[in-house]
Amino acid sequence: MFSLMPREKVFFELFNKSAANAHATAKALQALLEDFTDVDTKVQRIKDLEHAGDEIAHEIFDRLAKTFITPLDREDIHAITSELDNITDMADSAASRLMLYKVGVPTDDARALGRVLVRATGSLVEAFKLLDNLKNSEAILKHCIDVHTQENEGDRINHHALAALFENNTPPADIIKWKDIYHIMETATDVCEDVANVVHTVVVKNA
Amino acid sequence: MFSLMPREKVFFELFNKSAANAHATAKALQALLEDFTDVDTKVQRIKDLEHAGDEIAHEIFDRLAKTFITPLDREDIHAITSELDNITDMADSAASRLMLYKVGVPTDDARALGRVLVRATGSLVEAFKLLDNLKNSEAILKHCIDVHTQENEGDRINHHALAALFENNTPPADIIKWKDIYHIMETATDVCEDVANVVHTVVVKNA
Amino acid sequence: MFSLMPREKVFFELFNKSAANAHATAKALQALLEDFTDVDTKVQRIKDLEHAGDEIAHEIFDRLAKTFITPLDREDIHAITSELDNITDMADSAASRLMLYKVGVPTDDARALGRVLVRATGSLVEAFKLLDNLKNSEAILKHCIDVHTQENEGDRINHHALAALFENNTPPADIIKWKDIYHIMETATDVCEDVANVVHTVVVKNA
Repeated sequence: MFSLMPREKVFFELFNKSAANAHATAKALQALLEDFTDVDTKVQRIKDLEHAGDEIAHEIFDRLAKTFITPLDREDIHAITSELDNITDMADSAASRLMLYKVGVPTDDARALGRVLVRATGSLVEAFKLLDNLKNSEAILKHCIDVHTQENEGDRINHHALAALFENNTPPADIIKWKDIYHIMETATDVCEDVANVVHTVVVKNA
Repeated sequence: MFSLMPREKVFFELFNKSAANAHATAKALQALLEDFTDVDTKVQRIKDLEHAGDEIAHEIFDRLAKTFITPLDREDIHAITSELDNITDMADSAASRLMLYKVGVPTDDARALGRVLVRATGSLVEAFKLLDNLKNSEAILKHCIDVHTQENEGDRINHHALAALFENNTPPADIIKWKDIYHIMETATDVCEDVANVVHTVVVKNA
Repeated sequence: MFSLMPREKVFFELFNKSAANAHATAKALQALLEDFTDVDTKVQRIKDLEHAGDEIAHEIFDRLAKTFITPLDREDIHAITSELDNITDMADSAASRLMLYKVGVPTDDARALGRVLVRATGSLVEAFKLLDNLKNSEAILKHCIDVHTQENEGDRINHHALAALFENNTPPADIIKWKDIYHIMETATDVCEDVANVVHTVVVKNA
């Protein structure tokens, strides 16, 4: 299965491109969270990365529709593609809301969630670099475990962040705004875990 | 693939019925948003359309389970069916909340989101009318692009609506209510785009 | 199809285990809702059940990846597994938030939603007990209908609960907290219905 024809190899290249794009978007979001200046420019850059992600996803879906024999099961290619794209969409959505909500300087918890997303997408990039060669299965699974660790960490930070919001007499409108932003960022890390689960399945199937 | 046996043609007829039902629900929601009187009657009518949508979906799922050779890939039939049904569910959910929340006369933004949903479901109706004949592929894809355009417009309106909610010293309980309603309506338009994406894939697969 | 090889029978055993675990989690959540003392211990017990659910899901996914001929369609096994796991995750999430949000004694509506989830997961347990023998199809479908009934009831309670929240001059922060908890609990019951729908499809496919 893994001695691939050139035409099929393209799926792995496109996965790499999509994971790299999700990681770049997470880093651009983190840059915004760490230094909340020049907000319009930074948010626009993230929006551009989100459009680039859409185009990669469309290219994969079109190739998938036209390819009869695929290097991985169709449903796995489909899940990886749409969920990598979702990560990028959510990072963009968090950035838009930071601007739209006029919430001022990001909280420590938002920055911590951003770091988790950068690490989780970074581990996905590493996993996808190895996916076209089954000999790498152990290293791939290690990166998948890293993503799980980050997802747990994201969960922990989100809990802490929610507790803090409600404990500090935060004005209700600000609770609504930050809860929304935290939720989007934590969900983005959950989706990283969903991608890692599909990669895990792909590796097990071909073991 | 597209010279269909009568028994298989029924899937296309049921898609038409389901898309028409989603469009009728969107129009009934819009009628409520434009003229917020007789609310109970109008909400009940939308609830009836939602039940009709459930029945269409169940009929498709039962036929799919009993059909060995399907005119489209099973997962595409499944996705189209459950997502068309979701659009109807969400329009019903938005209507219920307009009544339940006692929010008074709908905002301009709610009406604008309603118009977008009417247009997006209308484009889906047009796309499904053409789907049983591959010669129509160009026209079908045009309708899919229309849905994308509406989804972007829904996104834009939702952003505007959220900003307005937070800027106008809206009481927190009203922020919560309207944010919920806007979110449901915008998500309904997102789901229209998901359906358009499946239709796009079906067309590319059979090109 | 239903005269199963021992190796394939394991999927049905694992479904039983996963449904029983979801039901145990719902009951543990209900115990917390009915007697809101010893909160830390009870929430930890629910967290342990959630971890047990994760392990069952991973075992099923790994077996699915390694099994060439499956007793049910792969996508049905996948959907049942991930959605049973989601029910457990959501019950855990509701419990965590009850602790985290420091909302005090649970409302009547929260307890009513908890009872619905206990009943819905109980019906799933009964359905899965019968799933490995097609002669049971009528009894299985009866349990699926029970789940639908519970889902409708959950919907009704959630509506009532939201109306009550907004009518009683509830402080906005408490509206946000309870709306979140109700939403998670109602969604858990929706997911029970999703599982029942897959079971329904499995029965129809093999009729």
